[in-house]
Amino acid sequence: MNLALPLEKQSLTGIDRLVALVGADMARVNAMILSRTGSDVAMIPEVAKHLINSGGKRLRPMLTLVAAQMFGYRGEGHIKLAAAVEFMHTATLLHDDVVDESDLRRGKATARKVWGNQASVLVGDFLLGQAFKMMVEVGSLDALDILSSAATVIAEGEVLQLAAAKSMTTTEDKYLTVIGAKTAALFSAAAEVGPTIAGLPHMRAPLAQFGTDLGLAFQLVDDALDYSGHEAMLGKRIGDDFREGKVTLPVILAFARGTPGERAFWQRAIEGGDVGEGDLEIAADLIRRYEAIEETIARARSYASSARAALASCPVGEHRLALEEVIDFTVERAF
Amino acid sequence: MNLALPLEKQSLTGIDRLVALVGADMARVNAMILSRTGSDVAMIPEVAKHLINSGGKRLRPMLTLVAAQMFGYRGEGHIKLAAAVEFMHTATLLHDDVVDESDLRRGKATARKVWGNQASVLVGDFLLGQAFKMMVEVGSLDALDILSSAATVIAEGEVLQLAAAKSMTTTEDKYLTVIGAKTAALFSAAAEVGPTIAGLPHMRAPLAQFGTDLGLAFQLVDDALDYSGHEAMLGKRIGDDFREGKVTLPVILAFARGTPGERAFWQRAIEGGDVGEGDLEIAADLIRRYEAIEETIARARSYASSARAALASCPVGEHRLALEEVIDFTVERAF
Repeated sequence: MNLALPLEKQSLTGIDRLVALVGADMARVNAMILSRTGSDVAMIPEVAKHLINSGGKRLRPMLTLVAAQMFGYRGEGHIKLAAAVEFMHTATLLHDDVVDESDLRRGKATARKVWGNQASVLVGDFLLGQAFKMMVEVGSLDALDILSSAATVIAEGEVLQLAAAKSMTTTEDKYLTVIGAKTAALFSAAAEVGPTIAGLPHMRAPLAQFGTDLGLAFQLVDDALDYSGHEAMLGKRIGDDFREGKVTLPVILAFARGTPGERAFWQRAIEGGDVGEGDLEIAADLIRRYEAIEETIARARSYASSARAALASCPVGEHRLALEEVIDFTVERAF
Repeated sequence: MNLALPLEKQSLTGIDRLVALVGADMARVNAMILSRTGSDVAMIPEVAKHLINSGGKRLRPMLTLVAAQMFGYRGEGHIKLAAAVEFMHTATLLHDDVVDESDLRRGKATARKVWGNQASVLVGDFLLGQAFKMMVEVGSLDALDILSSAATVIAEGEVLQLAAAKSMTTTEDKYLTVIGAKTAALFSAAAEVGPTIAGLPHMRAPLAQFGTDLGLAFQLVDDALDYSGHEAMLGKRIGDDFREGKVTLPVILAFARGTPGERAFWQRAIEGGDVGEGDLEIAADLIRRYEAIEETIARARSYASSARAALASCPVGEHRLALEEVIDFTVERAF
């Protein structure tokens, strides 16, 4: 199935400039990640490596690195903070899979499927502990404040999502609150720690805003792709959100605009968890009919504009250009 | 069933002196705990309060308070650090119950039984995030180092236990490593942050040692009580460890000394999870026959002596006396 839209523009540069800028630092972050998943308890490196090697782009730690570089940071702390950001993300994924009872992530068996829920919960806790240890070693109380606040907000967002999950009464506002906490908070914190350790406190707010907007755009596009992407490019099956009963913006929009009969369909599938043969096609068809993908992407583009505006006070140059390209890539990817 | 031993001495003072010394501070810790479990996400305060009000003695935060007082600390940071210690403990319990699939804790339904595994995992994450936020607010990087290291060690111990669980090949050494990490690490950290924030770095090691030894004694007595305590005093059922297939020191000792037939019994019950009517009585009988309770308590007493010795360099007075009485209470409780 391919519902990809004819979009007006293709991503030309992708994230190549970003990767080139932070490549050397990122190699050190990866070495740090490997060394910090070491443990005499054999299961810890096994589980951690399974997830860490599972093919993510490591966008979040790259944001920390490039933001630190952009403001002329000359120390070593950005390496550990970037590794800590990735560990926080990894811990969240491990716990998410338990909460969502997911068996696949990026086309691979989840850690909970291979090692069980128990290992996923505990290795997540271990990685969270290691993340905080690394932050403490860097010694910036401001960076610690930013990242520990994000940890709380992320967990709050997950609980909110749990309470809102599988309910078609979820409003667009509530949904945006959830993804703001679940996804955007870590993007925001990852970017904000850059100027923080570089000693430029007045640049914290713009970078935090950039990260929030980028994270929102990123999640909205993810939600759209789940009903419209190419499986091979996504690295995951189309329709996972639907099968798991996740209420995302495309669903909220199609539901709001639907007939009573169509609403009953969504309620049966999402709230009742009753998804049969052909239901995904019906769902995708309704989403297409009400232009819910276009509208979701339009919201993402609006956040992308806001993210770009937030960078206005940053120094002009390669680093800012790389961040602008990340924004474009986030919105245009896989279309 | 009552296998209580005729012990030579009854606890006379209990922890009354400790409670009197830290009572005023503890009221502030409790207020802090309440205010920090607040969230717009209704499920978070519900789950947190369920566990926080479930009747624990809050020994760990009291250690932080009394250790800070003993060294003349005059600031406010000990309140937040004590609350953070309790949150770390609570988060561990929430995740433990998911990992152990426990339905009861201290005679009450566990959070995972009432709200599900998902809420327990996520509210645990929230409390851990709040714990770190409070530590950051206190602003002592040394205290942050101690507590974030403990968080990592605790998680490592949990994973180690998971790997060792339900295996009768678990050695006494491995078991001591597990409880050293799972239980003693937080006792140790809770005590060590006292002199740390009081600005007496040379007293960190003795207080950490005191906490480690106290924690080991505490856990060993807990393990013994599970086969020999009074249910009413324990606030939990006798034999829970056995029914859950937990390998504790009494079991390790009885197994090591048992006949081939008895070993087969332990293997069937613990490794095979095949526990039927009357098996708990058989287990308790074997443990009694091989004097495994007496020996477990003897080890606990030995750690208690070591804990007392670790306090030798502390100032003589009410605070030290209170800590010595906590040691006695820990070993003599419920007998």
